Amino acid sequence: MTRDLTVAEVRLTPILVADPPLLNTQGVHQPYTPRLIVEVVTADGTTGLGETYGDTKYLELARPLAEHLTGRRVTDVNELFALDLAVDESRTGAAVDAGGLRGVQTADKLRLSVLSAFEVACLDAQGKASGLPVHALLGGRVRDSVEYSAYLFYKWAGHPDGVAAEPDDWGAALDPAGVVAQARRFTERHGFTSFKLKGGVFPPEEEIAAVRALAEAFPGRPLRLDPNGAWSVETALKVAGELHDVLEYLEDPTLGTPAMAEVSAATEVPLATNMCVTTFGEIREAFTRDAVQVLLCDHHYWGGLRNTGHLAAICAAFGVGLSMHSNTHLGISLAAMTQVAATVPGLHHACDSHYPWQAEDVLTERIAFTGGRVAVSDAPGLGVELDRDELARLHRRWAEDDGTLRDRDDAAAMRVADPGWRTPAMPRW
Amino acid sequence: MTRDLTVAEVRLTPILVADPPLLNTQGVHQPYTPRLIVEVVTADGTTGLGETYGDTKYLELARPLAEHLTGRRVTDVNELFALDLAVDESRTGAAVDAGGLRGVQTADKLRLSVLSAFEVACLDAQGKASGLPVHALLGGRVRDSVEYSAYLFYKWAGHPDGVAAEPDDWGAALDPAGVVAQARRFTERHGFTSFKLKGGVFPPEEEIAAVRALAEAFPGRPLRLDPNGAWSVETALKVAGELHDVLEYLEDPTLGTPAMAEVSAATEVPLATNMCVTTFGEIREAFTRDAVQVLLCDHHYWGGLRNTGHLAAICAAFGVGLSMHSNTHLGISLAAMTQVAATVPGLHHACDSHYPWQAEDVLTERIAFTGGRVAVSDAPGLGVELDRDELARLHRRWAEDDGTLRDRDDAAAMRVADPGWRTPAMPRW
Ligand SMILES: [Mg+2]
Ligand SMILES: [Mg+2]
Repeated sequence: MTRDLTVAEVRLTPILVADPPLLNTQGVHQPYTPRLIVEVVTADGTTGLGETYGDTKYLELARPLAEHLTGRRVTDVNELFALDLAVDESRTGAAVDAGGLRGVQTADKLRLSVLSAFEVACLDAQGKASGLPVHALLGGRVRDSVEYSAYLFYKWAGHPDGVAAEPDDWGAALDPAGVVAQARRFTERHGFTSFKLKGGVFPPEEEIAAVRALAEAFPGRPLRLDPNGAWSVETALKVAGELHDVLEYLEDPTLGTPAMAEVSAATEVPLATNMCVTTFGEIREAFTRDAVQVLLCDHHYWGGLRNTGHLAAICAAFGVGLSMHSNTHLGISLAAMTQVAATVPGLHHACDSHYPWQAEDVLTERIAFTGGRVAVSDAPGLGVELDRDELARLHRRWAEDDGTLRDRDDAAAMRVADPGWRTPAMPRW
Repeated sequence: MTRDLTVAEVRLTPILVADPPLLNTQGVHQPYTPRLIVEVVTADGTTGLGETYGDTKYLELARPLAEHLTGRRVTDVNELFALDLAVDESRTGAAVDAGGLRGVQTADKLRLSVLSAFEVACLDAQGKASGLPVHALLGGRVRDSVEYSAYLFYKWAGHPDGVAAEPDDWGAALDPAGVVAQARRFTERHGFTSFKLKGGVFPPEEEIAAVRALAEAFPGRPLRLDPNGAWSVETALKVAGELHDVLEYLEDPTLGTPAMAEVSAATEVPLATNMCVTTFGEIREAFTRDAVQVLLCDHHYWGGLRNTGHLAAICAAFGVGLSMHSNTHLGISLAAMTQVAATVPGLHHACDSHYPWQAEDVLTERIAFTGGRVAVSDAPGLGVELDRDELARLHRRWAEDDGTLRDRDDAAAMRVADPGWRTPAMPRW
């Protein structure tokens, strides 16, 4: 009756996945972004899936972890977290990390980001072996679907000339009308009813105008603006003042806990973050100073689904709201986000997901948004299946890359179009 | 392959279990103390065990929960916590709760205390059904044994004349020599190497002398003193000053976060608590004010093993140490404590347990302390088995009780010996 949950093999497959030319304050998304797919195979042939960032430094850390896990059981996850892994500290600089959009870079956060994929893969395998959905391994779901928001981006119609890239059919969005058109398309395709605009791209007045246009087009709907810390305290307060009547929250208007606390103290608009609090070590100061009112957790960099549950409990104890952050990711991570989100009692806001922007995936069946929501799967594990042909194809793309795309660098991608582009000094405005 | 984890039946068995005449600041332990044994039986015949307080108000709340869980799955635990249970608020007064030794009494805490037994029973059943120890359901163990401390009590040789009671062979301990003799016996029997004295019974000078005697008898060993809030801030600081060189920590020297914060600010001796922070709602103020340095968690009143994991993460994020509190309990709860303690990375101090004081248990085999430690079982579930005959015997004792012992009241027990005894006003000293 009891299955053998010993790990016989861990497969690490780095891939490059097509990404549209989405703009942010640091630059533009590369035409292909690196992701790492982790497969944990047990002695009885069950395969669990996980996914995380695929940049070289994540991959390098994944290899010794894969070795360590082999021969252990998929239920021995806490022990992985207790491992004293040597992390190359020189690798944790912001420069090689999506242009510094993910908050502080520490060896521990890097470690947790890699561990998250192993934890998810182990839970998927355990669930499949025992016939239980991942949410049941976390105590069971308290909702049958999870709400996501439309993640709006300023974008070009295509990647710069001369860059090999998959075309996308979203067109350009570079002004209020373009943003509203994009939002309409999101609602038509996926039924989203709340909207987040990635800001910090244009001067604040233009982004204020875009949010105003959204408010007019979708009256009463929750709206968010996220300039990734591109503003000074003064600018942040000016934007908060002008948009206070339509914003659900303002996301990372400025950088760091002291500045966020200053903004927070002077506005009624709730502040959300996936930048000033992205590690357990940053919680104490930020929560004590009331610097943020909504924490956007990301199971990748918080270290997996159980840690997400812990984080939710910390937020609840301190009266801080909870939602989810997202970077470019595929269906394995969307399934993981949905499974854990289903178990968390106080999920106060629709979660973010880049998934609608990803035309490619490694699943046999894409995950669907209906009415802006993803149904919580009750199938064993994560409830998703790997498309091995597609995985192999996206891995070939990675293998054939000359190295330019294997480490995501939004500023470098921007320099293809604008050779004089430098990572902007913050605050930009 | 997949087992049917639907709950076919929930059995609630209130029992009375023999308890020695242990003294505390509110009075004395009753000769028998009420506990509730919860059995969750799945459709495929797996039985999971849980244990919690057995006072009437817990029992009353357990009945609708048992009804609700029946027909659901043992993996649907989060949903139980989200239930809006009607709690009779008149039942949450301190008077009927072990003499107010467990901190604030709220409807929510009462609810969590009952839920904890259901969660543990569900985890035990899930583990048995899947061939996994409970710790594996919580991510796996990070240690193979859990350290406990010797829990020393001032005590009488026997319960007062005229009270039907099981005799114990520990003898009296009413002065420093008696306390040291008791400690020696604990080390001989169970190998404990750290010692906690339940104080608040005699004037502080006498208890200081007892701790000094322990320090002389066991040089360098971790010592703790817990007067259950019986002292004023001034007295607490006086005791801290006199014992600072030998105390691992001082436990609840005074009542409430403001007073604890005052003591904490004026001494280097760490303060521990299972009274001023016993609910998630109390964490924010206490941690923000640095009122406590060690949190003594109790999976019963924090709401089970997953919540204990959450609490451990909160403590870690705020730099607060972690250990475990204990009330009179049996082997099911000791197994549960050990399973969850095995999974928590930062367990900084030996845990408390009353278990050595309980000559009776409902297990077929008592859990052993070796070198002061309990080995972490890798057997399915909690790794313990119910002794049905013993359960029936202890239940008969409960059924035949006229009601005087069904709600633990240490002050009432004290009045049997001292009719003039009243619950002392705090601070006593
Ligand atoms: Mg953000
Ligand atoms: Mg105590």
